Amino acid sequence: MPIFAAPVRDQQFLLEDVLDIHRYSNLPGFADVQGDVLGAILSEGAKFAENVLAPINRIGDIEGCKRNPDASVTTPKGFKEAYRQFADNGWAGISADPTYGGQGLPHVVALAISEMSSAANMAFSMYPGLTRGAAEAIYAGGSDAQKQQYLPNMFSGKWAGTMNLTEPQCGTDLGLIKTKAVPQADGTYKISGQKIWISGGEQDLTENIIHLVLARIEGGPEGIKGISLFIVPKYLVNDDGSLGARNALECGGLEHKMGIHGNATCVMHYEGATGYLVGEPHKGMRTMFVMMNEARLGVGMQGLAQAEIAYQNAVAFAKDRLQSRAVTGAKRPDLPADPILVHPDVRRMLMDTRAFKEGARAFAFWTALYADLLHRSPDEAVRQKADDYLALMTPVVKAFLTDRGLKAVSDSLQVFGGSGYVEEWGMSQFMRDARIALIYEGTNGIQALDLVGRKLAANGGRAVFTFFNEVEDFIGESNADPALKPFIEGLRTAKDRLQQATNWLMQNGLSNFENAAASSSDYLQLFGLTALTYMWAMMAKAAQAKAPTGDDFYGNKLKTGRYFLDRVLPETALYLTKVETGAEAMMALDLEAF
Amino acid sequence: MPIFAAPVRDQQFLLEDVLDIHRYSNLPGFADVQGDVLGAILSEGAKFAENVLAPINRIGDIEGCKRNPDASVTTPKGFKEAYRQFADNGWAGISADPTYGGQGLPHVVALAISEMSSAANMAFSMYPGLTRGAAEAIYAGGSDAQKQQYLPNMFSGKWAGTMNLTEPQCGTDLGLIKTKAVPQADGTYKISGQKIWISGGEQDLTENIIHLVLARIEGGPEGIKGISLFIVPKYLVNDDGSLGARNALECGGLEHKMGIHGNATCVMHYEGATGYLVGEPHKGMRTMFVMMNEARLGVGMQGLAQAEIAYQNAVAFAKDRLQSRAVTGAKRPDLPADPILVHPDVRRMLMDTRAFKEGARAFAFWTALYADLLHRSPDEAVRQKADDYLALMTPVVKAFLTDRGLKAVSDSLQVFGGSGYVEEWGMSQFMRDARIALIYEGTNGIQALDLVGRKLAANGGRAVFTFFNEVEDFIGESNADPALKPFIEGLRTAKDRLQQATNWLMQNGLSNFENAAASSSDYLQLFGLTALTYMWAMMAKAAQAKAPTGDDFYGNKLKTGRYFLDRVLPETALYLTKVETGAEAMMALDLEAF
Repeated sequence: MPIFAAPVRDQQFLLEDVLDIHRYSNLPGFADVQGDVLGAILSEGAKFAENVLAPINRIGDIEGCKRNPDASVTTPKGFKEAYRQFADNGWAGISADPTYGGQGLPHVVALAISEMSSAANMAFSMYPGLTRGAAEAIYAGGSDAQKQQYLPNMFSGKWAGTMNLTEPQCGTDLGLIKTKAVPQADGTYKISGQKIWISGGEQDLTENIIHLVLARIEGGPEGIKGISLFIVPKYLVNDDGSLGARNALECGGLEHKMGIHGNATCVMHYEGATGYLVGEPHKGMRTMFVMMNEARLGVGMQGLAQAEIAYQNAVAFAKDRLQSRAVTGAKRPDLPADPILVHPDVRRMLMDTRAFKEGARAFAFWTALYADLLHRSPDEAVRQKADDYLALMTPVVKAFLTDRGLKAVSDSLQVFGGSGYVEEWGMSQFMRDARIALIYEGTNGIQALDLVGRKLAANGGRAVFTFFNEVEDFIGESNADPALKPFIEGLRTAKDRLQQATNWLMQNGLSNFENAAASSSDYLQLFGLTALTYMWAMMAKAAQAKAPTGDDFYGNKLKTGRYFLDRVLPETALYLTKVETGAEAMMALDLEAF
Repeated sequence: MPIFAAPVRDQQFLLEDVLDIHRYSNLPGFADVQGDVLGAILSEGAKFAENVLAPINRIGDIEGCKRNPDASVTTPKGFKEAYRQFADNGWAGISADPTYGGQGLPHVVALAISEMSSAANMAFSMYPGLTRGAAEAIYAGGSDAQKQQYLPNMFSGKWAGTMNLTEPQCGTDLGLIKTKAVPQADGTYKISGQKIWISGGEQDLTENIIHLVLARIEGGPEGIKGISLFIVPKYLVNDDGSLGARNALECGGLEHKMGIHGNATCVMHYEGATGYLVGEPHKGMRTMFVMMNEARLGVGMQGLAQAEIAYQNAVAFAKDRLQSRAVTGAKRPDLPADPILVHPDVRRMLMDTRAFKEGARAFAFWTALYADLLHRSPDEAVRQKADDYLALMTPVVKAFLTDRGLKAVSDSLQVFGGSGYVEEWGMSQFMRDARIALIYEGTNGIQALDLVGRKLAANGGRAVFTFFNEVEDFIGESNADPALKPFIEGLRTAKDRLQQATNWLMQNGLSNFENAAASSSDYLQLFGLTALTYMWAMMAKAAQAKAPTGDDFYGNKLKTGRYFLDRVLPETALYLTKVETGAEAMMALDLEAF
């Protein structure tokens, strides 16, 4: 069975030494993670992920979910018990508002916990992940009454939540939604239509499921401007909070998927189900985006998490598997052959993954901290910067971490040779599970379009210019330290290339948006690489400061960072070149030529 | 169900216009494919792949193979009937020596046919693929009596063949083999041991299975120098050719794999089975390499083939799926949205795959033609060059085409969005099937080590220098044609970078082999990119010559080539940079740091 040890040490290094979250002890929730408390929380999360979630990951893959003749869904063996522990231990509302029963801890700490769960069992973790997203949307857009009615039970894990966007004819293009909402005399709506690919649309883990559904109010505007958001509970909720009648909705079937078998991906039929409007009519997209942004950070984290567990197993295999001798001479003459970890090409795959995952974790945490600042800082300038950064970085975190995460999982599988292809070793599941993360919550191509088409240009480019200035400031502050020189030089290189690409987009993409669209994915890669270079520079600085402790952790951090500079950073040149090719060659073939 | 149309037009363009195989009509077999015959053969192969193999591909994935209580194996529904047609139509021995009942057609034509089969049904095609490899080994290393006894029935498809190398403790490092061979008084051997991951080790398709088994003759030298090769038939063969007693071997179990479910991957138990030595004692590796080289070209082709079928399905989906409007304005205002093929980022994924697969096909065919020249040319200089090239290019074809093939399949899956992740659409199977090709017949890392550690240096680098000279000659000949200018410039760039990397390896890898090993995979990528640039230059030249026909095929070929130059060729700079980083950062961490 695959091994898993939650990366607590690395997480704590990031939270305390790199991001120094203790400096925010004046913000709500941050005071609760001072001193040893942070370590204790992370270590509880680790225990749960390692001992409860990881052991049922493969069972979930093999058994999958079953839809029963009565349209109920049975999750894999052990999921129900694990979910009960999850809820009982209070993990569901760890960073949620205490007004509604949440624990109010920092969002970035919650993300660290969800990284662990996601690595240990991605399919399981999607149930609470979606619930968190749905609750965030109600929190952001719902009325006080709705918040009081739904949030406490969602933050306690008693009820779950889902997002219902996709229909057979519409995925990315939500303007094509057909599901309709008919206003009733009592102010509710009757929701009718079919939704597909609804993660956790039905399950046997929670007493109730709060579906958030995008639908079109009869007579409203065409296209995306006529989309409203509704709360459509599986069981209606009485005024006293008890469960009422079963609503007119059901799971019509489950998808057969490449991976995440333990998560029920449902076709949902709404047949005049009672729904409650969230926020204003026809403004559903605004609230839905709150939910999607939260979810997109989480999906980026899934890419990283699968890379983490795949890496750990590849390392264990590479230490154990004896095959051939080191090119520099036998390292273990006492054994029939050396462990394959001595071979440079095996190192290459492991170091690529290690340099990625450590940088990616920093990037995800650094971004998530802005979610805390946005919602909790009393300083408007801080909140604005946080808002800018969250908007700008979210598509990069989502797409870059899932693209590279999949590559890292595939490389880790490759370390196993033939065993990597055999299901019992678990690597195939990690790869099959990781594959979805490039697709859902907006494909990675859509993330790239969001980045160049919306986020870059917003407020005259304020967010990206703030980022460039921040990097310049960091370079200026750290330039004097000779130990950091290669990191600072690398950061200068990456930042210059990203800036050049940004200028190219402004000059060539605004006048001809086909150029911007053609270059968007390469620009996003360049952005991700630059962000990771910045993270590595920050981590190097923190590790350098701790070097006198003599703890190998810091020396190894610096060596891994050097690997990133030598062997990953050069990709920035490639992506700059690609950005600057524009649309011409890409669009040269006629439609008929395909 | 996934669609598939065999790429006959592109294959014929390569064979006739680019490689001009008709100029070899003086060589055995080539005279038989003159005029319309080539097209007729390809079109028969296409029919078989499209109508017989493709329809049972998904059935094979879903059903998989079953091992019965009596240790027999049942292949998926339809495989038996398809195999009978395959044998009856004479596909098994299409390029084999007519002396033993083969049809003697060029190897490169056989490869074109096997590309089609492999695209349509990779799991099925492995059964005859392994048989071909085993037969080649007997042909190369067996006695006349052995050839007469086994080859006719293998070339007719009546019997199958397998390769038995791997054991639980040894994959790459075959010196660790434990399976033993005990000499008997009658000149035969008793073979005992366990072999794993034996593709087609047991099945219900053929009357007999001829296992080629690597084993150690008792008392022979330790390590790789004590390995001998044996023919170990499932049923012993009487002198009159009829089947005799069941041999003491059986399938002990089937692996549960990520993909290629339709192929039975067997644990094989040999329990004093009768075996016949092939060639000399302790020299088994030499003959086994004949088989592996043949197989490695075939595996490279699998990477390309899965890219081809995945691309075709992605294109069909992208034409059919309506979502959002083109950034340049609605292309199909009559429809609720435009087909997603209009979107640049969708184009990017399709064009990446198209530029790869067309170049890769040329590279595989160009290499395979040297197998024909090696075995059939009367001119020793031609045979030597062919031998050099085959040795040099085989690891590149294997690793480059499977690495990039997987990427291409994953990109094609991505075009489908969520549907790509749903098994019914077939894209998941293509990706799961394609994943094995990076591993078997020597992992891609081993291919890279073979390239830099063995193939480059052989005969003082004669092969690679011949290649550089050939490219220079081509540049010299084509320089004058202004229409080819970008291709010639691109080729010059790629070739210079590959030459620089080769020089770096000679200067830094010979004295410190850790440097060579550390850079091997990046060098292989650079080599593959350079080879594809050369292929694109040759294809552009051929297409340019046909441009006056006005056939769009040629214009589209040139446009696709331009895409390759603009957006793929720049990767050569990245890989050169990576090659030149050497081993330092890669090996900086202590073993204990992992």
